[in-house]
Amino acid sequence: MEFKEIIAQLGDIAALNSFNCNQNLNPEISSLAAIDLATTGNLSYIEGARFASMVEKTEASALILPNDETLQAKATQRGIAWIATKEPRLAFAKAIALFYQPYQPNPGIHPTAMIAPSAVIGKNVSIGAYAVVQKEVKISDRAIIHPHVVLYPEVEIGENTTLHANCTIQERTKIGANCVIHSGAVIGGEGFGFVPTPEGWFKMEQSGYVVLEDGVEIGCNSTVDRPAVGETRIGRNTKLDNMVHIGHGCKIGSNCVMAGQVALAGGVTVGDRVMLGGQVGITNHVHIGDGVIATAQSGITNSVPPGEMVSGTPHVSNRLYRKASVIYRKLPEIYETFKQVKQYLAEK
Amino acid sequence: MEFKEIIAQLGDIAALNSFNCNQNLNPEISSLAAIDLATTGNLSYIEGARFASMVEKTEASALILPNDETLQAKATQRGIAWIATKEPRLAFAKAIALFYQPYQPNPGIHPTAMIAPSAVIGKNVSIGAYAVVQKEVKISDRAIIHPHVVLYPEVEIGENTTLHANCTIQERTKIGANCVIHSGAVIGGEGFGFVPTPEGWFKMEQSGYVVLEDGVEIGCNSTVDRPAVGETRIGRNTKLDNMVHIGHGCKIGSNCVMAGQVALAGGVTVGDRVMLGGQVGITNHVHIGDGVIATAQSGITNSVPPGEMVSGTPHVSNRLYRKASVIYRKLPEIYETFKQVKQYLAEK
Amino acid sequence: MEFKEIIAQLGDIAALNSFNCNQNLNPEISSLAAIDLATTGNLSYIEGARFASMVEKTEASALILPNDETLQAKATQRGIAWIATKEPRLAFAKAIALFYQPYQPNPGIHPTAMIAPSAVIGKNVSIGAYAVVQKEVKISDRAIIHPHVVLYPEVEIGENTTLHANCTIQERTKIGANCVIHSGAVIGGEGFGFVPTPEGWFKMEQSGYVVLEDGVEIGCNSTVDRPAVGETRIGRNTKLDNMVHIGHGCKIGSNCVMAGQVALAGGVTVGDRVMLGGQVGITNHVHIGDGVIATAQSGITNSVPPGEMVSGTPHVSNRLYRKASVIYRKLPEIYETFKQVKQYLAEK
Repeated sequence: MEFKEIIAQLGDIAALNSFNCNQNLNPEISSLAAIDLATTGNLSYIEGARFASMVEKTEASALILPNDETLQAKATQRGIAWIATKEPRLAFAKAIALFYQPYQPNPGIHPTAMIAPSAVIGKNVSIGAYAVVQKEVKISDRAIIHPHVVLYPEVEIGENTTLHANCTIQERTKIGANCVIHSGAVIGGEGFGFVPTPEGWFKMEQSGYVVLEDGVEIGCNSTVDRPAVGETRIGRNTKLDNMVHIGHGCKIGSNCVMAGQVALAGGVTVGDRVMLGGQVGITNHVHIGDGVIATAQSGITNSVPPGEMVSGTPHVSNRLYRKASVIYRKLPEIYETFKQVKQYLAEK
Repeated sequence: MEFKEIIAQLGDIAALNSFNCNQNLNPEISSLAAIDLATTGNLSYIEGARFASMVEKTEASALILPNDETLQAKATQRGIAWIATKEPRLAFAKAIALFYQPYQPNPGIHPTAMIAPSAVIGKNVSIGAYAVVQKEVKISDRAIIHPHVVLYPEVEIGENTTLHANCTIQERTKIGANCVIHSGAVIGGEGFGFVPTPEGWFKMEQSGYVVLEDGVEIGCNSTVDRPAVGETRIGRNTKLDNMVHIGHGCKIGSNCVMAGQVALAGGVTVGDRVMLGGQVGITNHVHIGDGVIATAQSGITNSVPPGEMVSGTPHVSNRLYRKASVIYRKLPEIYETFKQVKQYLAEK
Repeated sequence: MEFKEIIAQLGDIAALNSFNCNQNLNPEISSLAAIDLATTGNLSYIEGARFASMVEKTEASALILPNDETLQAKATQRGIAWIATKEPRLAFAKAIALFYQPYQPNPGIHPTAMIAPSAVIGKNVSIGAYAVVQKEVKISDRAIIHPHVVLYPEVEIGENTTLHANCTIQERTKIGANCVIHSGAVIGGEGFGFVPTPEGWFKMEQSGYVVLEDGVEIGCNSTVDRPAVGETRIGRNTKLDNMVHIGHGCKIGSNCVMAGQVALAGGVTVGDRVMLGGQVGITNHVHIGDGVIATAQSGITNSVPPGEMVSGTPHVSNRLYRKASVIYRKLPEIYETFKQVKQYLAEK
């Protein structure tokens, strides 16, 4: 695809570009690449200071640049075509979509798909080989059910939602429109509810529901558990990475992101636009306010007010954490002084 | 269901109740709910001080209360039916079971289930669509094998045990009676055994066995590995949450609970009634005594005596951990004083 | 198998042995066992000081010993047959392979396997029941595809590679020769790439590739993600345990080992022979040098030079970590002194 055509398709986001000044800077773009690996025919991008110096060495034929005139001049000087935007990463994401769309099976129901007579299947749905759709399941229009997906009875799947191979959706689960459930994920499995008795653990049946609102994405091998009563709910456009565990009865707001291996115990409530780094754990029944950020491996043991950034186990403010982490490294030195002081105090 | 009937069915546990004093307090109960979400027609429960004040605001029609006369009087005053018990959560669990039982497929073998001729299948077993039961597998009476379960050769499954969709049970695994294996779990996969050599890692074949005793429950996407020699064993009525990893050769006692994302390295031995919080890790070949509690994210690097409560990485007693965590937050302040002291000592 | 025959089959590694001195020390070996559980007819091994004293009590009929004459004399005295080697664990691994090979299905394509006409299948391949092999997939000679594996379009599987039941290999993935992918693993799932916009998260399509080089092993329920551009690559003979998460665009060298529940964020580069303990997390775009060791639960937030051993979150050198961990336990004591000093300084 010519660079000129990419500019045209990206629209407003690409208004400022080298092509306006130099009609010759119109390379043929064959694919996209990261800035450090780009070669002739590649379009790449630079975002922020970290990779800015790469403009001087990259072999990319075209770049998406931030609004930085020095970088733009440097690119022009090196004969690299460019567009400039406030959001280079977003423009790059849009450019990828010009070159690639993920594999999607065609609509149609594979003859080996096992579909209960009472299931209700919408229009233009794709259901792959050996998928199992049990009684009274409802699948809405244009949903894509990859091979080997198992839907337990009464599950509901919204429009345009994609379920990847080998995921399992259990009873009492309702998944909204435009969701993506990745391979190996289990939605609606029984919450971990056992009551101690002298004879051992008494199982609390998990009679509640799981609701994923529209636009939710659940990573590979993640799990979202069904509660004893009430709902486990994940809000609109919230995105979960791989191996994230959402305990029974959690209520998660909209537009959150949770990185790999995050675990929420039962009954946690999470506001909107919360960002949890990898391997964060949250104890049961706490509340995480809107816009909270928890850095990777944080262990959150109490509720966190909106807008806070927290770190560590048990969590503290990120500001305190960064200070204390530096001092932690000086503990051996502090301890030497402590011993001297202790002796000094004893001798006084 | 009338409240009167619930009381009757709960038996001894509900001996003390509002109905004895006030025959009119017999609401129709349609379902159960958490105390903060309960509305008319709901039965809910209160356990301990945390939610006690909810008696004054809940819209529940009936409550399971602790043995607290103030709460009982308040409920009566508000016209809420109640029962009182030492174990409100247990009574609530029993009440849920009056309203809901998890989906169970009927006995019978689906025509698409692929069952080896040498497999031995008990009475009233359910085997779902596309399940694969390989040679010499033994499945006992009333076991439930959901769709898409794969059983490797020679696996044994006990009576009344349920295997959820998409779980995999590999060779040399014996699962007892009344167990539940949730979706995506893998039991009997090869332990992680490699020996360093100058040519790279030499694979140690995992020729041992995995044994789950009766009443064990394994969460979604959890894994229990097969050892090189001997057994990996999980004791009676031990319950594992989702994404728990049990390394090769671990021996786990009875009535333990392990929350989400716990990981035990190889050869760990665990006593009875041990409770591990979420994301706890235990290093190889240590012993965890009976009744030990490890709080979430603990990293256990040495054996722990019976009855201890431990926290932190590397773990310390929970008592020390709580103190040290508070002081950790004062490290910046301590460090300022340290610098003054250091200067003072230098000037002396 | 007679001990004599085991010695013969182990070859050079068993040159020094009790049989040379005493022709009668030739017990019949029925199986192998760990040293603390071994009984008559078992071969076991002792490696290092930790289990050395077991020579005096073990009921094993034969032992693999280190080059330690005292242990050898003790074994002879107790009538235990033995071989001695620098590498007892390696010799034990080789002995296991004389008694056991993991279950392998015979070559052949199960009639229920769903194979696209455009797929290319090599010689002596085994494809199990209900496996799904989509269009233009290439499977090389002697590969073993267990039941219920799903291969997305255009996937390539190398010679002698084994895919266990219920794993999923998505588009744009190339797996080399002699690899093992365990049950529930997902290779080639979409990387977690979302760009924030005022309207929510914009999905960056993951148009890159995943490459596993020869001899790679991926544990049960682990995930290796496909990147937006470029490759995610795992080098020759690198071994991953269960539930390991490899983010999009990571480049991992050869002969690494990663224990259970390790998580690498996007774009991490890892050298050769790196060893990561269980539950280690690594933040995005850092570089881990050759031969680095990170102990369990480390949180690596910056690049680590070759050969370093690191621990803790945020990581520090293991040497500092061990010192600081000991002092951490003294924080309450240090704090008492700190308060005295503070008062003393205030009064001066």
